[in-house]
Amino acid sequence: MITLTSDFGLKDPYVAEMKGVILTINPKATIVDITHDIAKFDIRMAAFTLASAASYFPKGAVHLAVVDPGVGTERRPIVLETKNGFFVGPDNGLLMLAAQSQGIEHVHELSNPNLMLPKTSNTFHGRDIFAPTAAYLDKGTNPREFGAEIKDPVITCFSAVERRDGVLEGEVLYIDGFGNIITNIKEKDMLSSRLLDVKFPKFSLKLKFGRAYADAEPKEPVVLVGGYGLVEIAVNQGNAAGKFNAKVGDKIAVTAA
Amino acid sequence: MITLTSDFGLKDPYVAEMKGVILTINPKATIVDITHDIAKFDIRMAAFTLASAASYFPKGAVHLAVVDPGVGTERRPIVLETKNGFFVGPDNGLLMLAAQSQGIEHVHELSNPNLMLPKTSNTFHGRDIFAPTAAYLDKGTNPREFGAEIKDPVITCFSAVERRDGVLEGEVLYIDGFGNIITNIKEKDMLSSRLLDVKFPKFSLKLKFGRAYADAEPKEPVVLVGGYGLVEIAVNQGNAAGKFNAKVGDKIAVTAA
Amino acid sequence: MITLTSDFGLKDPYVAEMKGVILTINPKATIVDITHDIAKFDIRMAAFTLASAASYFPKGAVHLAVVDPGVGTERRPIVLETKNGFFVGPDNGLLMLAAQSQGIEHVHELSNPNLMLPKTSNTFHGRDIFAPTAAYLDKGTNPREFGAEIKDPVITCFSAVERRDGVLEGEVLYIDGFGNIITNIKEKDMLSSRLLDVKFPKFSLKLKFGRAYADAEPKEPVVLVGGYGLVEIAVNQGNAAGKFNAKVGDKIAVTAA
Repeated sequence: MITLTSDFGLKDPYVAEMKGVILTINPKATIVDITHDIAKFDIRMAAFTLASAASYFPKGAVHLAVVDPGVGTERRPIVLETKNGFFVGPDNGLLMLAAQSQGIEHVHELSNPNLMLPKTSNTFHGRDIFAPTAAYLDKGTNPREFGAEIKDPVITCFSAVERRDGVLEGEVLYIDGFGNIITNIKEKDMLSSRLLDVKFPKFSLKLKFGRAYADAEPKEPVVLVGGYGLVEIAVNQGNAAGKFNAKVGDKIAVTAA
Repeated sequence: MITLTSDFGLKDPYVAEMKGVILTINPKATIVDITHDIAKFDIRMAAFTLASAASYFPKGAVHLAVVDPGVGTERRPIVLETKNGFFVGPDNGLLMLAAQSQGIEHVHELSNPNLMLPKTSNTFHGRDIFAPTAAYLDKGTNPREFGAEIKDPVITCFSAVERRDGVLEGEVLYIDGFGNIITNIKEKDMLSSRLLDVKFPKFSLKLKFGRAYADAEPKEPVVLVGGYGLVEIAVNQGNAAGKFNAKVGDKIAVTAA
Repeated sequence: MITLTSDFGLKDPYVAEMKGVILTINPKATIVDITHDIAKFDIRMAAFTLASAASYFPKGAVHLAVVDPGVGTERRPIVLETKNGFFVGPDNGLLMLAAQSQGIEHVHELSNPNLMLPKTSNTFHGRDIFAPTAAYLDKGTNPREFGAEIKDPVITCFSAVERRDGVLEGEVLYIDGFGNIITNIKEKDMLSSRLLDVKFPKFSLKLKFGRAYADAEPKEPVVLVGGYGLVEIAVNQGNAAGKFNAKVGDKIAVTAA
């Protein structure tokens, strides 16, 4: 099983070319798109999306991800082997959040030309290097065959939640297509109060802690624990990010009301 | 074979998580997306889309559909068994149009925790309940094993066509990505005249009844019978809904010209 | 293996209906979407996209493509057999660029009603004629069984590159989702100078010839050879087509600076 994540969009033939390369090498591969609508060049959004989805795939899955502003430069192409599977892509931090949560065992550079397309471009390693790598890994090729072991892969930092004097400080990690504002605050870190003051950069509001979106009236906001065990602010049948002018990276402060 | 329909979009990892859950339980499943671009919370649009597509899939197919503003409340998760296959999703009317057209045999609530993910959220039953259900049904699990039989599933109403004094009154059922205006008027209910007066809320126009889009000049409108046997108003190589300011639910009146 | 290319978009059930038809006839088919986001009715964009992607698929692949403003008129539905596989779709030029690059062996009209859906509409040959054709070809049906041989398929013309007095004249072939401006100038036809004057209809600029996008500073332009061996103008982590107001079909002139 091979998953694909990128900022390529679905209009251009790029994603299909990666699939054609994979299926030429490995005609029995099952390929699943995670998403190709990562905001262009947004490595953090891709890292979060990949980490969210990867945990729902079976043991042994190969996760190919490409958001790659440095393609063709000296940034290394890599494969990460974890306790649960493999991650293939550029060494720019994109793969680390997901791989770390599975437990990283080895990291190898991709430098073996026999396991790439015969002609590799400087602009599309997704097709020319990462797709063949994923296809061979899925067929059972050992990660060591791709190149030398690496001890210093690039790491992306996500900020931690802080709690002091009864104030819980976190940030907006992700805004989904419904406009739900997903924070980095975990369920277990949440305040016990069911009535909360939530402070965004541009809005302060008093919110009830609910169980489901429909615990608020239609078009009214609610705080709840979402599908990843993370605290989110939502508007029932509406768009919270639009209503509260929230963006990824915004700081939020939560206190008991 | 399992099909997926939702309002989740393709930007977020939600659809991929459902697929990961299905393939973990049932690695041999063939999964086909019907669409994930249903307008958010639009149960009627989803019901029409699902009913249109489901009839083209093989006998025994499992159709999972989620447009679910009531997720996490007392609305029931259900499976409908029909003469041709299975429909899995929320009990909010979404599944009924498609299921009724295949002949419903039994409806069961989904309440067996052994056939769900170990931890079910209140915000994402698509992944935690419906995906495992679809995976197990596709593997041959009997619908009775999921929970008690239900006799009162929720029904969505679509308005009927009326004909009086030579006026055929219907409504706009769907507007597709080309801007074609698909009505609820069936080919057999249509007036026999080949020249028609068509009245929209904001436009009246005289139209020829054609066989193909290109029976009109480029950028000119035509009435014809579309791919579902339903009467539609189109503009050759143009966008009829934009031109005539038509929306889903608009009443239309057709008379011989 | 069957690939699909169209201007249907992914919101409507049309693509899924084609897949349902294919999988009903040929349940073991592997189906890969090239793209369904071709600009509506844009046969040239579809021809370029199909030709780009098809070369990455295995020998024997069946490529179904539909951008079909003439559906239901006398334009013929066809299958092209090449040295590498098959192309199925309307006889409007869409398939020829890709098929010619593989070497066309035979062209047949699709006129055998036993190899179509029992009821064919005048508006959706993708589902009613092309999908069954692709499914049967993938199962091994001989192209001769679909209908009579054709000697005069419609051809789409793409303009050639011209070079005179040190000026290289080409045109914009495609603009991808990153805003990269892909021209029809091949690597081997390029001037040897590493500093170039590039003239668009609305902009003239001096550009360095680089190896990778990141050879330019962020937000700065660069000329390079892209993933198809074609010369493209890009902006590192930016959108070149937006910045230089470039459109498909624009003439460009390149000289040594």
